[in-house]
Amino acid sequence: MQVIKGGVNSPQGFSCSVGKGGIRKSGKNDLALLFSERKCNAAAVFTTNRLKAASVLVTAKHLSDSGGRMNGAVINSGNANALTGEQGLRNAFEMAAAASKELGVAQCELAVCSTGIIGAQLPIETVIAGISKAASSLSSSTEAATLAAEAIMTTDRSVKELALELTLKDGRKVTIGGMTKGSGMISPKMASLHATTLTFITTDAPVSQAYLQQCLEQCTERTFNMISIDADQSTNDTIFMLANGAAGGTEIDSDPEFEEGLHTLMWELARMVALDGEGETKLLTVSVIGAETETDASAAAISIVKSNLVKCALFGGDPNVGRIASAIGNSGVHVDFERLDVSFGRKSDVPVITGGLVTGDLRAAASMMGDREVHVVVSLNKGSFSARAMGCDLSYEYVRINSAYPT
Amino acid sequence: MQVIKGGVNSPQGFSCSVGKGGIRKSGKNDLALLFSERKCNAAAVFTTNRLKAASVLVTAKHLSDSGGRMNGAVINSGNANALTGEQGLRNAFEMAAAASKELGVAQCELAVCSTGIIGAQLPIETVIAGISKAASSLSSSTEAATLAAEAIMTTDRSVKELALELTLKDGRKVTIGGMTKGSGMISPKMASLHATTLTFITTDAPVSQAYLQQCLEQCTERTFNMISIDADQSTNDTIFMLANGAAGGTEIDSDPEFEEGLHTLMWELARMVALDGEGETKLLTVSVIGAETETDASAAAISIVKSNLVKCALFGGDPNVGRIASAIGNSGVHVDFERLDVSFGRKSDVPVITGGLVTGDLRAAASMMGDREVHVVVSLNKGSFSARAMGCDLSYEYVRINSAYPT
Repeated sequence: MQVIKGGVNSPQGFSCSVGKGGIRKSGKNDLALLFSERKCNAAAVFTTNRLKAASVLVTAKHLSDSGGRMNGAVINSGNANALTGEQGLRNAFEMAAAASKELGVAQCELAVCSTGIIGAQLPIETVIAGISKAASSLSSSTEAATLAAEAIMTTDRSVKELALELTLKDGRKVTIGGMTKGSGMISPKMASLHATTLTFITTDAPVSQAYLQQCLEQCTERTFNMISIDADQSTNDTIFMLANGAAGGTEIDSDPEFEEGLHTLMWELARMVALDGEGETKLLTVSVIGAETETDASAAAISIVKSNLVKCALFGGDPNVGRIASAIGNSGVHVDFERLDVSFGRKSDVPVITGGLVTGDLRAAASMMGDREVHVVVSLNKGSFSARAMGCDLSYEYVRINSAYPT
Repeated sequence: MQVIKGGVNSPQGFSCSVGKGGIRKSGKNDLALLFSERKCNAAAVFTTNRLKAASVLVTAKHLSDSGGRMNGAVINSGNANALTGEQGLRNAFEMAAAASKELGVAQCELAVCSTGIIGAQLPIETVIAGISKAASSLSSSTEAATLAAEAIMTTDRSVKELALELTLKDGRKVTIGGMTKGSGMISPKMASLHATTLTFITTDAPVSQAYLQQCLEQCTERTFNMISIDADQSTNDTIFMLANGAAGGTEIDSDPEFEEGLHTLMWELARMVALDGEGETKLLTVSVIGAETETDASAAAISIVKSNLVKCALFGGDPNVGRIASAIGNSGVHVDFERLDVSFGRKSDVPVITGGLVTGDLRAAASMMGDREVHVVVSLNKGSFSARAMGCDLSYEYVRINSAYPT
C-alpha cells in the first residue's frame, strides 16, 4: 500500500468539476460534480440525526432506486438544505435532475450532498444553472479533484484529500481516492441508512455492491464515527463511495488488502477532519486497550474526546487526569477503576494513573501536552479489545467561530 | 407556599458550622457540617457516573446501614476524594467517624460529601482536626447556614440557598430549606443509588423515609437532572435530604403540597446552579411541549441545552434555529419535523420555526437573545407531555476557567 498524490480522480475513470451556484455571496465555488462514465457499484452511510437533510433523504432513495448502481454525485456547500420541508426535497431532486440531463445518466444514478447553513432554501435557479455549466467542464486531472475538494469546504482551513495504490490479494493493482470536508458540527455516528462531514471515496477496483457497502460500514465505525469535534452530530453527514471497476478483472467480494487500504484511507481522511476541527490547536488521539468488547473500547475512547472539560484541559496543556477518568466513568462502560491505567504518549511513555491511582509524573505529562498531537492510552485491563478515537481541544477560537457564525 | 429568608437552618431543629481542613491553600473555609439533634428520615440520590467518589460510596452505604435514619452530613470542598482508591475510602469513613465522635451519633448516621479536584488524597489529619473543631460551633442561625453554603463552593460565583414555608394538606405549616453548589462538570443524571453538584435539603415536616426518597427521586428527575452546564457528569453529584419531623404531628406519606413545595425549592436551586454555570453570561430555558411522553420531552429539551453549537450561538446572540432543530434530531426522539414549531420568549412571543420551516422574524428573535435569560419553546405537536431544561451559554470565560484550572 502506498500513498500517491491526488484524490478522487486518482482511480481510473473518474472526473470532477466545480461551479458557482450563487449560494455563497463571496463568489467562491459552491458546487462540485464527481462522475464516472462507467457505471459504478455504490455504497453510502448517512447521519443518524433524526433531522436529515433533504439531500440525505434523496441520496438514500437514489441508492435504493438504482439498486446501488450509480455514476456520481452533485454537491453544494454554503447551504445544508435541511429543515427545508417539501421545497427542500424538490430542490434536491432538481439538482440531480439538472446533472442527469447533462451527463446522460438517470436521475437516480446520482447522489446529492449538501453542507452549510440549516433552515434556508437553496437559490435553486442559479444552482441549476451552475450545475449545468459545471457538467460541461469535467476533468480527470488531479487539479480538478483538488478544486472539488476545495469547493465542498465550509469553515475548513485546509483541503482534505488522499489517494492510495494497493495490490489486491490476487496481485491486481488498484487505486482508492478520497476527499472529505468538515470542521464543525462533527460528531458523526453514521449508519447504513441514516451523518456535516461529507466524504467521497472512489476506486477503480471491481468490488461487488454488497461487499462495498459492508466494507464502508465497517470502516466508518472505526474511523469517521470515532472522531468528535463538538459532540454535535450534523443533519447532513454522508460518506458516498463509488467503485467503477475500471482496473478490470472479476469483482471482489472479500479481500483483506482492499479492506486495509480503505481503512487506512478513511482513518487518514478522518484525521484531517479532526486536525481541522473548528478552533483546533491540538489533536487528541485516545487509544483504549484491554476492553472486554470493541463496543466498550469505542464508548470509552469517544467519551474522552467528547468531554468539554478534557478538551479545555488539552487547550490549556493541563494533564487533568481526573477529567479523563471521569469521562471514562460517563461512558457507561463497566470499568474496574482499581485496575485502570492511563498514560500519555503514543507508546504509553508517561504513566499518570496506575491501578486507579494518580501516581505518575504530571510534570512530564504536562510537557507532552505542549505537542501539536497528544496521545492518551487507556488500559482497562479487563479483556483484549481496543479502539482509537480522535478529537481536538476546545479553544477561544472555537467559541469565536461559533458565536459569530452568521445565521 | 412562600419564600422566606434563609436556607438549610430555616426548618426547626437544624444547625450548621464551618471550618478549615487545610485543603484549600487560600485559607478559605473548606469544611461544613449540617446537623439535626433529632433523628431524621434521610433520602439521597447520587451520580450515575461509573467512577463514583469515595464519599458517594460511603454515603450510600451509611444510608443503607442506618435504615434511612440519619442526623447530618460532613462536607468538604477543594477535593473530590474520587479516583483515590482504598485510602480515599478510609478517609471518607474517617471524616464521618470524626464528626460522629463529637456529635454523639453513630458513624453511619452521617453522610459524607466532597467536591473539588479529582485524583488527589485528602490531607486527612488536618481535615479531622477541622471537623472536630467545627462540631463544637454548630449554630441554627441563618448566617451559619449561609456560611455553610459558602464553604461548599468551588468555582461558584455566588452562594446558593433558599427556604420555603408551606402548608400541608391537613393545615400544618412546615418549612423546607436547601443549599447547593456547582458551576462546572454539571450535567447531573442522578438516580437512587448513584451525582459535582452537591445539594442539601432540610425540612421539619414529618415525612416517612420511603415517601421522602420517592419525592426526592421524582423532583430530581424534573429539576437537577434537567440542567446541564457542560455535559460532563461529575463523579460526586449528591442530593442529600433530611426530614426531622420537628414541626410535629403524624408522618406524611402522600401530600401534593409537600411535593409541590419540594419541586419549587429544587427547581429554584437548580436554576441558581445554571445561572452560575462556569463562564455563564446567559441562562437558557427550554420548554418542550406536545411530546408523546415525558421522557421524549425531557430528552429533546436536555439535548438542546447540551449542544455546544447552540450554546455558542446563545453567547453570540445569534438565533441559530438550525442548530436547535439539529439538537432535537440528535436527541433520538421520534419527531415529525414537518409539525415542529419553535419560538423564542417565555410566552412563545416570537415564532421562528413553524411547521418545520424557518418562517419567523429572526431579527426580533435576535433582539430577545440580548436578554440575560433566553426562553425557547419547542412544540412537537404529537402529544400532551412536556418538560423544561436549563443551561447556559459557552463563552470565552468557560474556556479560560477550564483551561487554566490547576490540576
